[in-house]
Amino acid sequence: MIKVLIWNEYHHETFPGRPQELYPDGMHNAIARGIAAPDLEIRTATLKSDEFQGLSDEALSWADVLVYWAHCRHDDVLDETAHRVARHVRNGLGFVPLHSAHGSKVFRELMGTNCNLRWRNMDEREHLWVVSPRHPVAAGVPAEFALASEEMYGEYFDIPKPEDIVFLGWFKGGNVFRSGLEFTRGYGKIFYFQPGHESCPTYHNPHVLKVISNAVRYCARTAAEPRFNGEFEYGVEPL
Amino acid sequence: MIKVLIWNEYHHETFPGRPQELYPDGMHNAIARGIAAPDLEIRTATLKSDEFQGLSDEALSWADVLVYWAHCRHDDVLDETAHRVARHVRNGLGFVPLHSAHGSKVFRELMGTNCNLRWRNMDEREHLWVVSPRHPVAAGVPAEFALASEEMYGEYFDIPKPEDIVFLGWFKGGNVFRSGLEFTRGYGKIFYFQPGHESCPTYHNPHVLKVISNAVRYCARTAAEPRFNGEFEYGVEPL
Amino acid sequence: MIKVLIWNEYHHETFPGRPQELYPDGMHNAIARGIAAPDLEIRTATLKSDEFQGLSDEALSWADVLVYWAHCRHDDVLDETAHRVARHVRNGLGFVPLHSAHGSKVFRELMGTNCNLRWRNMDEREHLWVVSPRHPVAAGVPAEFALASEEMYGEYFDIPKPEDIVFLGWFKGGNVFRSGLEFTRGYGKIFYFQPGHESCPTYHNPHVLKVISNAVRYCARTAAEPRFNGEFEYGVEPL
Amino acid sequence: MIKVLIWNEYHHETFPGRPQELYPDGMHNAIARGIAAPDLEIRTATLKSDEFQGLSDEALSWADVLVYWAHCRHDDVLDETAHRVARHVRNGLGFVPLHSAHGSKVFRELMGTNCNLRWRNMDEREHLWVVSPRHPVAAGVPAEFALASEEMYGEYFDIPKPEDIVFLGWFKGGNVFRSGLEFTRGYGKIFYFQPGHESCPTYHNPHVLKVISNAVRYCARTAAEPRFNGEFEYGVEPL
Repeated sequence: MIKVLIWNEYHHETFPGRPQELYPDGMHNAIARGIAAPDLEIRTATLKSDEFQGLSDEALSWADVLVYWAHCRHDDVLDETAHRVARHVRNGLGFVPLHSAHGSKVFRELMGTNCNLRWRNMDEREHLWVVSPRHPVAAGVPAEFALASEEMYGEYFDIPKPEDIVFLGWFKGGNVFRSGLEFTRGYGKIFYFQPGHESCPTYHNPHVLKVISNAVRYCARTAAEPRFNGEFEYGVEPL
Repeated sequence: MIKVLIWNEYHHETFPGRPQELYPDGMHNAIARGIAAPDLEIRTATLKSDEFQGLSDEALSWADVLVYWAHCRHDDVLDETAHRVARHVRNGLGFVPLHSAHGSKVFRELMGTNCNLRWRNMDEREHLWVVSPRHPVAAGVPAEFALASEEMYGEYFDIPKPEDIVFLGWFKGGNVFRSGLEFTRGYGKIFYFQPGHESCPTYHNPHVLKVISNAVRYCARTAAEPRFNGEFEYGVEPL
Repeated sequence: MIKVLIWNEYHHETFPGRPQELYPDGMHNAIARGIAAPDLEIRTATLKSDEFQGLSDEALSWADVLVYWAHCRHDDVLDETAHRVARHVRNGLGFVPLHSAHGSKVFRELMGTNCNLRWRNMDEREHLWVVSPRHPVAAGVPAEFALASEEMYGEYFDIPKPEDIVFLGWFKGGNVFRSGLEFTRGYGKIFYFQPGHESCPTYHNPHVLKVISNAVRYCARTAAEPRFNGEFEYGVEPL
Repeated sequence: MIKVLIWNEYHHETFPGRPQELYPDGMHNAIARGIAAPDLEIRTATLKSDEFQGLSDEALSWADVLVYWAHCRHDDVLDETAHRVARHVRNGLGFVPLHSAHGSKVFRELMGTNCNLRWRNMDEREHLWVVSPRHPVAAGVPAEFALASEEMYGEYFDIPKPEDIVFLGWFKGGNVFRSGLEFTRGYGKIFYFQPGHESCPTYHNPHVLKVISNAVRYCARTAAEPRFNGEFEYGVEPL
């Protein structure tokens, strides 16, 4: 049983507007329903869940993988919260940052770069292409699929070179993007996935949900992996 | 002084039609003029140059880097010619395969894969985006530039994972492509660049010529590098 | 159920000597017993199994992953046999070349390089170190383990840059080696593992067998993956 | 002319002992003399150089590449100093962290990981092997060279996967290490090189100095590269 924590800043969906129409009880719950499966035990949390912003040591130790959506509330996530999440990722927690989580404190800390990108919000068509067809995150996903409306995220995306690029995004307005990306940091596996603007029905798309389902299983830590505490520097005897 | 050999199958431009209008004396000569510089000594050769199809051991030993354009005459390149070129590349010859050279015997031998791709020939607009801005092949090239008309080359491009992706291509019809790619094989550096359909004025575009100029310098072997003969497997004494 | 084909040239073990003492019925059977598990259906084959050298289209289509040991009989493997295996790998067959299979026709065709290396046969101690601890092939393997006696394989190993390096080897005589390596070619996943000289008891070592067990599961194709025939280049309509 | 800033915490060499005997005026000056060349303009700085710890915006803007040695004074480098250096690196400053700089605030910020490793200080023999012979940093360096005495640095080295591994280190006591590593962060090129313990004569070794010389040229920013300020996220018009 893989333990999945889906975290959402849960801002846009809390007041009347397109996001609330699309996701009445929040994107975290839409995703939770969308990826529900017998081998997944799913919990959700938000910025206001508790005194630890929904991301306590206890919650992060429980989880095998953290799905993370955030956008306009990045600055409200405390530095200590971000450091705590990053530390858990390095120690083995899987991490699936979605869409605008590219600009979150956690992702930036793990990348070591600005993570800036071009963007344009005008509901334009996107095509996603698989460029690493053997990758487990692409299993069961067609070679190409379209989203009628998404926010444009375009290159240059200021990230370290990813370990694999599974999806490339094409946007009607002329831009391209590295849209599905694998990284490893310490014992933690990371998969970034670009689609998911709050005013688009992206998390109701079956292909998007399939990608997130795959990523959750791909990034989840397993019992076989050591849960290091990050303090394993030491003097050793010759062999 | 870097010694550059520009090889072209030289077929389409030899009879009346759009390619001949665009490149009256062949694409190899257009490229040669386009990248001419004081630090480059440039020669050209074609399939009919000599009994070695323009790619003799002598020519390949002279050269520091080989620019290679080919398309509908792949099968006319003898197996022994292709093996000879591949061997020189492994021993340090730089290699810059252009456009449809993706399907050449040489490139496929060096890649170990089919090198297949999607394609569509309808003169559509392409945008090229830099996704590795620190890479020397991108130096002096704008973050994005457009070609009014190119043949579409689209993913999935069946190649091994490249060591770096410098350019991504966007095509009006909805496709994307990994358009500028770095590989190393043995002592040889390889840079594949996608634009260059024979019926488009691509090799008159200053940005395209800048990329090829950069690639030629980036891939060229230097005196400091050993020119191994590929037979360096041997038993050794303990240190 | 993962279908595993373990192929061995089966030469050294067929006449009196150390290899026969260590592996009376061949290394292929030692490995088969060593990795046996409820989720694996295992068959073995050798150079003399049948008219297709044990590697017919039928056998390769049956298998999800091919474990391959070869050394002094590389030249006896027919070119058509090697091409057939390589083609199946590109179409999704997992491939786990062991030890001296680095010099096989199949591996060289898939790599596009010589695959040469330094070597020294004097039964020296090797230590294997995990350098990609999150990799599934390292699961359950200690951070370091020793082999009292192995053939030295040393750098420079003339291969394309691997997609991941899971193990590094240390040899008493002063050499190092990239000993556990991941590649992808087309739809096929490849894991090369260095230990396994025929006159050493390597395939009785539990850590070595654990690595091979992991690699078999990691590289095996799954039903979700398309079994392309390698002929998917085609013209397409705009989206 | 490439502008090189060599920074040293300059601690061990300031009081009597082996480091001071080996480097009477500091390792920074030994390196400066060792890599001096007509195309390099070299300055040095230390932790006590000025109110900005020798790493002011002015100094970092002047430099094209920063060579950085640090060990037991990591905590004395102010957070704002470390952030400033990291920001300059992302904006194009080359960065060559040496030896124990693996644990510096700057390197850890740029990597996004702990950067921990095994270590043992008993003056043991190290062999360095070239595993990327075509890489410019290996030009003119023998396929293998030995250091009679170094501090052992061993795997697992907790870093993101490097873009290239140019050197592997073998230590007499049984350990291996990824000793020469390339990374890119934003517009900055990084080359980490492991040898250089303060009580060993490493920075008098001609091969070590050759590697640092090469790295300085390889990582230096050039006029052709934009010096972004890290604030290039913006909305854009369709093309």
